[in-house]
Amino acid sequence: MIKKWNEVRIPEEKEIEERLEAARAKLFDRQIKVKEGKIPVLIMLEGFGAAGKGSVLGKIIKNMDPRFFKVETIDKPSEDELRKPFLYKYFRRIPEAGRFSFLDGGWVDEVVSEKLHKGIKEQEYRARIDSVKRFERTLSDNGYLLMKFFFHIDKKEQTKRIDKLLSDKNTSWRVSHEDMWQNKNYNKYIDAYDTYLNDTNQSYAPWYIIDAKHKKWAELQMLETIIQGIDTALMNKGNAVPILQNVFPLQPIPKLADISLDKELTEEEYRAELDICQKKLSKLHNKLYRKKIPVVIAYEGFDAAGKGGNIKRIASALDPRGYEVNPIASPEPHEKNRHFLWRFWTRLPKSGHISIFDRTWYGRVMVERLEGFCTENDWQRAYNEINEFEKELSDWGAIIIKFWVQIDKDTQLERFTLRQNTPEKQWKITDEDWRNREKWDLYEEAVNEMLQKTNTTYAPWVVLESNDKKYARIKALKTVIKEIEKVLD
Amino acid sequence: MIKKWNEVRIPEEKEIEERLEAARAKLFDRQIKVKEGKIPVLIMLEGFGAAGKGSVLGKIIKNMDPRFFKVETIDKPSEDELRKPFLYKYFRRIPEAGRFSFLDGGWVDEVVSEKLHKGIKEQEYRARIDSVKRFERTLSDNGYLLMKFFFHIDKKEQTKRIDKLLSDKNTSWRVSHEDMWQNKNYNKYIDAYDTYLNDTNQSYAPWYIIDAKHKKWAELQMLETIIQGIDTALMNKGNAVPILQNVFPLQPIPKLADISLDKELTEEEYRAELDICQKKLSKLHNKLYRKKIPVVIAYEGFDAAGKGGNIKRIASALDPRGYEVNPIASPEPHEKNRHFLWRFWTRLPKSGHISIFDRTWYGRVMVERLEGFCTENDWQRAYNEINEFEKELSDWGAIIIKFWVQIDKDTQLERFTLRQNTPEKQWKITDEDWRNREKWDLYEEAVNEMLQKTNTTYAPWVVLESNDKKYARIKALKTVIKEIEKVLD
Repeated sequence: MIKKWNEVRIPEEKEIEERLEAARAKLFDRQIKVKEGKIPVLIMLEGFGAAGKGSVLGKIIKNMDPRFFKVETIDKPSEDELRKPFLYKYFRRIPEAGRFSFLDGGWVDEVVSEKLHKGIKEQEYRARIDSVKRFERTLSDNGYLLMKFFFHIDKKEQTKRIDKLLSDKNTSWRVSHEDMWQNKNYNKYIDAYDTYLNDTNQSYAPWYIIDAKHKKWAELQMLETIIQGIDTALMNKGNAVPILQNVFPLQPIPKLADISLDKELTEEEYRAELDICQKKLSKLHNKLYRKKIPVVIAYEGFDAAGKGGNIKRIASALDPRGYEVNPIASPEPHEKNRHFLWRFWTRLPKSGHISIFDRTWYGRVMVERLEGFCTENDWQRAYNEINEFEKELSDWGAIIIKFWVQIDKDTQLERFTLRQNTPEKQWKITDEDWRNREKWDLYEEAVNEMLQKTNTTYAPWVVLESNDKKYARIKALKTVIKEIEKVLD
Repeated sequence: MIKKWNEVRIPEEKEIEERLEAARAKLFDRQIKVKEGKIPVLIMLEGFGAAGKGSVLGKIIKNMDPRFFKVETIDKPSEDELRKPFLYKYFRRIPEAGRFSFLDGGWVDEVVSEKLHKGIKEQEYRARIDSVKRFERTLSDNGYLLMKFFFHIDKKEQTKRIDKLLSDKNTSWRVSHEDMWQNKNYNKYIDAYDTYLNDTNQSYAPWYIIDAKHKKWAELQMLETIIQGIDTALMNKGNAVPILQNVFPLQPIPKLADISLDKELTEEEYRAELDICQKKLSKLHNKLYRKKIPVVIAYEGFDAAGKGGNIKRIASALDPRGYEVNPIASPEPHEKNRHFLWRFWTRLPKSGHISIFDRTWYGRVMVERLEGFCTENDWQRAYNEINEFEKELSDWGAIIIKFWVQIDKDTQLERFTLRQNTPEKQWKITDEDWRNREKWDLYEEAVNEMLQKTNTTYAPWVVLESNDKKYARIKALKTVIKEIEKVLD
């Protein structure tokens, strides 16, 4: 698409000036509307070296209040980023509602450069494209305005600009080795960019090719495009977006009511098994660490189902330098102002580490659904968004273990009453717990829907029958061991 | 994506039977909901020859009421279809609301076969992919449920099945030359299919790969997928869909109020010019016909602006065998039950012909908008849908000329009064015309928005100043001549 982009003739200088003035004033106005409308705006600048991205961006932000935007330059990934999934470094940089983020360089650069320099395989390239498409779509579905600009100059112009920069010692430092290499391999680059742009040119996040030969014209194109983008986003504000057809392989799973909860272990059986399992897990953890395999363990369950004690039995078998437990409470304001998965993306383990989540992203389709903390459209969309999220983790190589810790209603009442009547346990029981209990049936319905819609082959649920906590703990340990062994073998 | 599709193990025979029974009953139930919900459903079956598409489809429709569905086999394009844009043969086959269409073969086959047999160029292939993506998206945006299935078998299985069919003279006729060629070139085909599936795997219309080695399992996968698709469509029913960012090159255009309407011609000038222009146009029409270039001329304008007389002056210069005039009234029920552009797709000229539209697809953003015949989301979306439609025509090679026939309010009143008072003109004036006149300002606002948002470089508007009808007629003729000459040169 780069090769056949230039369909608009450059207007006369005078027309450009007039339109620039109008557009600058409009951008000033629209930034306020973006803030008031709480729209998060992510603007990506990509393109050829020396095409003038930086200088155009510099002019554009002159029309804006510095409190409303942030410019992020994406350089080589850090040590930490290299040990996270591909999308991590981008997901963690998404703006808050009402703010602009300008990304100078982004996922394009990474994918295209690696394709050309490291020769990543077709299958790996495809997986990246799929990740990018899903990422961009889920941002858009969650109200983000995502705008993608590609600054284009031809080879001759690039050579001319590089030569000019090099000829002056005050500017020569601005020409990188990468720029030189790109200029030498211009044709290879244009092919790779073109393929990439075609592959990621989505209706919800289209590419705009900026004719960057003429600087004011480049600025005008970008300004006018941003303004129409903002106007479109304002129009879409608050509207539901379509729920997508499911494309993930699902496996049948029984309903909660059909799960027998009478499984139990004696104290002796428990002690013996616990000891064996924890020793085994401890060894496996070392191997995982050396092989740099990440593990994500997710816990969900009714109040007082025994999640805490269960997690403790797993954690105590692990080397503390190699795992974290993430207790998930209700989101803080800066978390609420971003995509609901942001606070989980930013809590992922490094490769070789284990992250245990005490409550998870599934809150979206349980408590947030039932308490009305999100719209119906939000939680209906979330099943797919969660399946996509877990697919990213799985493709990254993570072992994903999802526990539903199950008890029956009577058992919950017993445990609540015990907590209430035991002074050192009273902190564990709140009025909210009692209120949730009243909604047991609604929760059960939501959980059944959740289990059914997110029981993917690559991240299946495991139900822990926890009327007997001992049984549940051993089952959890054995499950974790089995899943790790499967991957290590 | 074909190569790594098989993520679900085939269940036991018994489980397949149980799930089949449940799924068949559900489909029976869902077809009623589809009818009641007025959802149009388009199901496409693609895949390798001898993969058993036909036999699975035969089983699926057994669960359905024959009044609710239609099976269409897409063969080689007809003579008429070859003289229409690529999407024509598919657009004309879209189902009515509440009905299912099963397409056995479709746009995939055409694109992939032509790629392999005729070696269409990369740029042509890209253009087709873009067309397909837009087509599928606009259907989805307009409430269509589009489901795409690819029936997959490996080379060994295909060879086995073909051999078996050939060995019996009662079935050997079912093996086509294409099937044989495909089996011989299986690896080429799988690569081409894989690329195509990747290129068109959209969130709003994803591909489903059906493991077709085992027939009952194939049927089950398809049934269960269709059911979740229908459930998703029912959930989306009636919801707005996001308005898209504009990606088409637009040119500035003045507002109606800023257009001076005092241009006029004397009777003598008019007569002389008319004669010259019509002769010229007549000759050009012959050339167009020989060069097989299609022309679309669209007329819009206020009531009594002089559209009819203007069209007459164009038409009378043309060879009647090479043009049609399409007067566009309000849509009939079978038209209203389809995508709003369907009745225009089915009225396109053949290559070498001229279609003149007296009122057009722009009704969506004028009368349908102002009279509430469509939702706000519908008409807001339509600017882009129209730009896409005209892009298809332009890429096909059509010359597109769009006239806005402009008069001022006083002139309209004069002409209305004259019509009212002249017995032989009274049929031309209705109460509706007077009612529309009361909404002049609202119409003017809608027209200004329309002109601004659809004045693309490839299909720009031409305003005909028609306070003096003579002037407007000559300007129209000259415009048509100029646009045709531009292309013929």
